[in-house]
Amino acid sequence: METRYLGKHLIAEFYGCSRDKIDNPEFLREILENSILKAGGHIVGRLFHRFNPQGVTGIVAISESHVSVHTWPENGYMALDIFTCGSEMDPWVAYREIFEKIKPGKVKVIEINRGELKEVKAEA
Amino acid sequence: METRYLGKHLIAEFYGCSRDKIDNPEFLREILENSILKAGGHIVGRLFHRFNPQGVTGIVAISESHVSVHTWPENGYMALDIFTCGSEMDPWVAYREIFEKIKPGKVKVIEINRGELKEVKAEA
Repeated sequence: METRYLGKHLIAEFYGCSRDKIDNPEFLREILENSILKAGGHIVGRLFHRFNPQGVTGIVAISESHVSVHTWPENGYMALDIFTCGSEMDPWVAYREIFEKIKPGKVKVIEINRGELKEVKAEA
Repeated sequence: METRYLGKHLIAEFYGCSRDKIDNPEFLREILENSILKAGGHIVGRLFHRFNPQGVTGIVAISESHVSVHTWPENGYMALDIFTCGSEMDPWVAYREIFEKIKPGKVKVIEINRGELKEVKAEA
């Protein structure tokens, strides 16, 4: 029998990113939120912070879990996480949307399953 | 030569958690923030949301990246992520602190490296 899980988590490394894009919290917020809506997700809150002298942390909480970015503009690097549960949101749709907007020079992405169903308790 | 990275990311599955603990956003916020401070991290913002009828999403943004939880109280399951960069914060100290407070029945945890240094651009 196929193992089933509560959620999916895409862990992506974007290398060779434009400094202008990944050091701009407004731009990042817009593309994250648009990617979530396009993928069928539901936003419940967001938290963006720009560090001095550079770098952005951006996290969007969604009913389906979260999407986050942490950026190192000085290195052209952005860490992207897309964690979803349920069947309404497709994390890969959000991924492709963000990829198209950032256009990194090189990526590495893995998909991890979260919350193995045979381990979780039945509802009390 | 040893490969070096910008960050570390602990991805933990906590099974068999008490519903009272993981359905309580105030409790989760307190243990996450305390664990971060104890581990040497620096909090820059937080976002907690309780879903109806149950479940909590909690994210604390830190100078070192983020700590997040997503909980399924009806299944006794909590997904925990501790993503840190730099050498000031030890993610395993935060992990152990959260583990001790939640006392899950079973855990699965992996450590992933983020941001391979040979791939990042030198500072412009």
